[in-house]
Amino acid sequence: MKIFDMEGTPNAARIRIVVAAKGLDDAIAFERVDLISAEQKRREFLAMNPIGKIPVLQLDDGTIISESTAITEYLDNLDGSPALTGRSPREKALIHMMQRRVEQLVLEPLDDHFHYATSGLGKALGPWRMPEWDGRHEWGRRRGDMAARGFAYFDEVLADRPYLATEAFAMPDITLYISLIFSDYAGIPTSHLPSLAAWRAKVADLPIVRNRSGQDLAPGDFERLTQ
Amino acid sequence: MKIFDMEGTPNAARIRIVVAAKGLDDAIAFERVDLISAEQKRREFLAMNPIGKIPVLQLDDGTIISESTAITEYLDNLDGSPALTGRSPREKALIHMMQRRVEQLVLEPLDDHFHYATSGLGKALGPWRMPEWDGRHEWGRRRGDMAARGFAYFDEVLADRPYLATEAFAMPDITLYISLIFSDYAGIPTSHLPSLAAWRAKVADLPIVRNRSGQDLAPGDFERLTQ
Repeated sequence: MKIFDMEGTPNAARIRIVVAAKGLDDAIAFERVDLISAEQKRREFLAMNPIGKIPVLQLDDGTIISESTAITEYLDNLDGSPALTGRSPREKALIHMMQRRVEQLVLEPLDDHFHYATSGLGKALGPWRMPEWDGRHEWGRRRGDMAARGFAYFDEVLADRPYLATEAFAMPDITLYISLIFSDYAGIPTSHLPSLAAWRAKVADLPIVRNRSGQDLAPGDFERLTQ
Repeated sequence: MKIFDMEGTPNAARIRIVVAAKGLDDAIAFERVDLISAEQKRREFLAMNPIGKIPVLQLDDGTIISESTAITEYLDNLDGSPALTGRSPREKALIHMMQRRVEQLVLEPLDDHFHYATSGLGKALGPWRMPEWDGRHEWGRRRGDMAARGFAYFDEVLADRPYLATEAFAMPDITLYISLIFSDYAGIPTSHLPSLAAWRAKVADLPIVRNRSGQDLAPGDFERLTQ
């Protein structure tokens, strides 16, 4: 199997944690997609994923699986022993509910803040972003405020439970964890939220998170890459 | 079990089709949430679903499941025979991939178009929508253009296959079908897309779609309700 992504970015880490959790490192080759030159918006990439985003998984028979939730479902179920996407109807439901809550309350607003209220991934992506108009930057800032409120919600959720959906680390925990890494680039502070900060430290120390392939980019790296 | 929704709206139909597909009509009570008076943004509803949207499923032990994907996973897996969310890793992956493609390429842009470029659900929801600024309506219109491009993509996809993800009707087909109903209210034409129009007629005629509980609102009904 092959995964198209860009090492060091939060969305790449999202699936690399799944790969580590399932012990699949040796079964997967990684091919770099250069987000800075907007390679993910070129015709060849859009043929794989019309949404134009990484990561994308290509199976050995050529089948394309895009969307992190879908890739996670595939890799997690391959060995017949799903650890990240749930076994019972109740676990599956709580995991998919929290996955969408993390995406809608923090990850998608953060993405908008990053691209519209900061310099984001630079100029090459410009034609693919929302066209210039007066409200664009203000909209990005408001989306950042929304992400900040979302993080406060998850701080409350994590005050009295070990992980978001079940008693064990699962798919939405990955999504929240990479959202916290993303918040560092996007300039949304989260370290003042005590339960969230303690949870982040605990997750960062899990072997499957610590030992995933690829080195996270630091906030300054994006500015350097896009200059 | 109890489902909180508003009969006649596309998102209510989304889960009512699942209920019909799984033969669960007698196991579920429906409680109406009045979207026109913004009941879904009141404190009691937000305690169930912080995103403030219907539908929400309440289990008999009080557990809350929000998000249509999560509710579908729960109801579809209850009898141990998932028909809508996939059995093999490959089916699960293709179903979740197409589910997110439908949401991102048509359903979410349609929702933005409906709320910002048309009169939407009326004035009571105003404080919960994006604040007034010059670009707001233009943004809604551009999101409508995006939905139109998304429908053209699905028209291509459906030119050479019977359903979106597998050989059988599944979760993303429900999402695309209710998006087509939604497009009628949101003023985005789709009937000129031949494969999509033929597919819509075929799906509308499936017994589980035809016999679901609740009567669809017609486009003019929203205007009447919100006056």
